Amino acid sequence: MNRQELISQIKQKKSFLCVGLDTDIKKIPTQLLELEDPVFEFNKQIIDATKDLCVAYKPNIAFYESMGLSGWNSLQKTLDYIPKNIFTIADAKRGDIGNTSNMYARVFFENMSFNAVTVSPYMGKDSVKPFLEFENKWAIVLALTSNKGGLDFQKIEDKHGKQLFEQVLETSQAWGTIENMMYVVGATRAEQLSEIRAIIPNHFLLVPGVGAQGGSLQDVAKYGMNSDCGILVNSSRGIIYAGNGTDFAAKARIEAQKLHQEMAAILIEAGI
Amino acid sequence: MNRQELISQIKQKKSFLCVGLDTDIKKIPTQLLELEDPVFEFNKQIIDATKDLCVAYKPNIAFYESMGLSGWNSLQKTLDYIPKNIFTIADAKRGDIGNTSNMYARVFFENMSFNAVTVSPYMGKDSVKPFLEFENKWAIVLALTSNKGGLDFQKIEDKHGKQLFEQVLETSQAWGTIENMMYVVGATRAEQLSEIRAIIPNHFLLVPGVGAQGGSLQDVAKYGMNSDCGILVNSSRGIIYAGNGTDFAAKARIEAQKLHQEMAAILIEAGI
Repeated sequence: MNRQELISQIKQKKSFLCVGLDTDIKKIPTQLLELEDPVFEFNKQIIDATKDLCVAYKPNIAFYESMGLSGWNSLQKTLDYIPKNIFTIADAKRGDIGNTSNMYARVFFENMSFNAVTVSPYMGKDSVKPFLEFENKWAIVLALTSNKGGLDFQKIEDKHGKQLFEQVLETSQAWGTIENMMYVVGATRAEQLSEIRAIIPNHFLLVPGVGAQGGSLQDVAKYGMNSDCGILVNSSRGIIYAGNGTDFAAKARIEAQKLHQEMAAILIEAGI
Repeated sequence: MNRQELISQIKQKKSFLCVGLDTDIKKIPTQLLELEDPVFEFNKQIIDATKDLCVAYKPNIAFYESMGLSGWNSLQKTLDYIPKNIFTIADAKRGDIGNTSNMYARVFFENMSFNAVTVSPYMGKDSVKPFLEFENKWAIVLALTSNKGGLDFQKIEDKHGKQLFEQVLETSQAWGTIENMMYVVGATRAEQLSEIRAIIPNHFLLVPGVGAQGGSLQDVAKYGMNSDCGILVNSSRGIIYAGNGTDFAAKARIEAQKLHQEMAAILIEAGI
């Protein structure tokens, strides 16, 4: 999916919601466990209940990888089930030397046809570049993560007072374009998004940490949105584990609707 | 495998060689392609030809993941085939928020029983900690990588002139012990290993970039070794792709022997 198609979906659906499919066999409703592929069955019902409300799905690859061959199988079936007009992100946080990153890119873009992969920047340009060489595919580079450990290194200041995540944004934007790169930026302090926007005004941002982890959607939009919307806000557990009974999908829909309504109001007010 | 067992293997074999199993279906001898599992068949012959010369094997996970289910299957068979007194490293460069890193740790330590996993430090403590919570298992944290992109961020200096990779070494060593953490440090400039040793005198270092990528084994040993040896030097392509005919394993053995002889001399001279 290209940038224009993504923006068009956002406008049509009046949503910039990304639903994180962190599907854990230990957390899904027990009645699903009798079925042949409980993980896919769970995802299928979540997708049916939310696909008109969101513009992206983000399976967390670890959860599938941890289940071995059956997990990869559930992931592939999930990906096949997601409507083609919805953006798909493999949340894999890969990154290695060039020929190895190329292998990972092929896994997610060619074998599995994801639209995007999340990538760690620690190993620099040649670890990210291979993800940028596929048409209409995206690398989503970690810049500022919302976990506690994000403070360990990402905010270290250089001699000029520039923090590491700012350096990552500045340096890496030259590796690709706004058509094939996005950034992960946490929303624990939404004001920081305006500093980030000063460096990369036009890139899409993937913002986790809204909902269960506590960031405010209003603030994220206020400081992070640009004239194309330019943000995807992810919610995983807050939606998919909203309920734990036979009505889990209906409960998930209610949570997704709350975010969707808020997003629609924000987009309408911004004239998007 | 614990630290003492690893050191004991190094002393017995007079080797600190790690063989990187970056097994690429496109590069292995064509006669293997007729077999049911060419990747495993290749690895099996490489292991048979080198297992008395090395103390570790390091499959590069991307190469297996890129082959889908059959690749994971080849990887598991390879791991099962490696003798239990040889250290096994999943070169996976994983790292995510805590519950996700825990999933990855379970993939490699529990589902597959690797001894160690390589981990990216960008997301900080809670992304690495989950890998340190398994008995006799190891996290090998990226500090200074030998690829060109390693220069993009890893050598950024803070206000006090401390480079990012030094900060990673200093901060992260408190997360674990010398019994469950190692570091990846590239060998393109071996002198730098003495600066690294000043920060972490006792940790094992996994050193890539010797051989095909050009670092000198003598220099790596001179600047990086400690009284327990304390280094594992990896060679991948230089060994496994030494030949491309029916004698590929014999050719691989010759290259491994060259490194082994040099290592044995170094260890004997150091009284290890």
